[in-house]
Amino acid sequence: MNKFLDKLNQRIARQKTFVCVGLDADLAKIPATFKQSSNPLLDFNKHIIDATKSSAACYKPNLAFYEMYGLPGLQALADTLRYIPKDIPVILDAKRGDIGNTSKAYAKAVFEEFGADAVTLAPYMGEDSVTPFLEYKENYSFVLCLTSNKGAQDFQKPELYKKVAAKIQNWQERYGNCGAVVGATQTQELRGIREIIPDAFLLIPGIGAQGGDLENTVQAACNKQKSGFLINSSRGIIYAANPAAEAQKLQEAINKLL
Amino acid sequence: MNKFLDKLNQRIARQKTFVCVGLDADLAKIPATFKQSSNPLLDFNKHIIDATKSSAACYKPNLAFYEMYGLPGLQALADTLRYIPKDIPVILDAKRGDIGNTSKAYAKAVFEEFGADAVTLAPYMGEDSVTPFLEYKENYSFVLCLTSNKGAQDFQKPELYKKVAAKIQNWQERYGNCGAVVGATQTQELRGIREIIPDAFLLIPGIGAQGGDLENTVQAACNKQKSGFLINSSRGIIYAANPAAEAQKLQEAINKLL
Repeated sequence: MNKFLDKLNQRIARQKTFVCVGLDADLAKIPATFKQSSNPLLDFNKHIIDATKSSAACYKPNLAFYEMYGLPGLQALADTLRYIPKDIPVILDAKRGDIGNTSKAYAKAVFEEFGADAVTLAPYMGEDSVTPFLEYKENYSFVLCLTSNKGAQDFQKPELYKKVAAKIQNWQERYGNCGAVVGATQTQELRGIREIIPDAFLLIPGIGAQGGDLENTVQAACNKQKSGFLINSSRGIIYAANPAAEAQKLQEAINKLL
Repeated sequence: MNKFLDKLNQRIARQKTFVCVGLDADLAKIPATFKQSSNPLLDFNKHIIDATKSSAACYKPNLAFYEMYGLPGLQALADTLRYIPKDIPVILDAKRGDIGNTSKAYAKAVFEEFGADAVTLAPYMGEDSVTPFLEYKENYSFVLCLTSNKGAQDFQKPELYKKVAAKIQNWQERYGNCGAVVGATQTQELRGIREIIPDAFLLIPGIGAQGGDLENTVQAACNKQKSGFLINSSRGIIYAANPAAEAQKLQEAINKLL
């Protein structure tokens, strides 16, 4: 069985939550008390994990926010991953993708070195850039389909994202561990993507800081079992005055819509 | 002025070389003597740099091959970058790309933390995922256009790569520091891309291990000044019995075609 799906489905069943907490701390934005710590990134993340763990279906650190601090940043990421309770799955937001031989090295980095349960991938280089990740049968890969940013207009629309969605569905049918990233700012298109990908998990950023609408998003994203989606919030939760309350608020707002 | 272009154009003028040496060592494939070292990646890279530096227009380590060994791997990359002579530019092959706020963090990682002169980027998320890199005026970005792998068929062909090429040219006109990655296995299309992007540098992998044809590639890739391209070889040079001779052979083979 798939370790990521096992953990995630158990979280969803027991905690009744579809909230993905994005651990994307920027040292310039964290509270002053943490800035004085000898390990501000790790201490801030521990504080966020402690505060949000009952509402978190999963955690999603974006590698960029650790790489920007060099090796000490990546050490803080490794330590953060060790701190996350073992029953909560981790998606490493990496948006990787390269020729097969190189994607194999990235897959080893993400799943073996960092020990993440799941990853995000960029599809531009096509199937042989994605399958080295899918061959990790216990892990899960979320492939970018339609993103929440303005640049989604440049190449993804009006047709490419549908072609990518069809490929994701094909990979999901063959490997059983492939979902999609779809921005919450695109609810009309999200509905169409859910038709192409009827069951697999959709990872949905863009609620909160990026302005997506929760009600339409949840209705468009959930599968026939009223599951199969994760609503990510990063800045909206981690920089809130009360991250615990903010995560719980999002959890309850989603559950009310199901 | 642009630090990457300055260094690169001086290398091309003085050393007469268009060879990009890919520093993508896999510990399973390096000679036994290096495997016994306490720092095999770094020692192997130093050996390759010493052997190839007179033929190298630039070096291109791919981050995947360092991330796969975790933090010690990334430390070996940082040490390798410090070892490369300051007059030889470095392209960090990263294929990054994310929403603007996150791309900004990646750009900081690549240009400030690692101190690379140039980077490779994936274009799927569009303009706001690329411009945070272009805003580093002293650095250079190579955006994936048409890649050398089989998966290039899945989304890039038959039309997307042309749309991406037109965007790259637009970014190049606005920022002056944007080139393209085009695989050597696609010489017909390479000619068309050179028409869309008349001047900027093209980074061309796929000669050697991936089977591209050198003569057609060089003729299609060079700009009107008989420059503007870099032929990358990774496995073909670093695993050769004599890396120095192999790099020089490629250098001379290219020069003969100009």
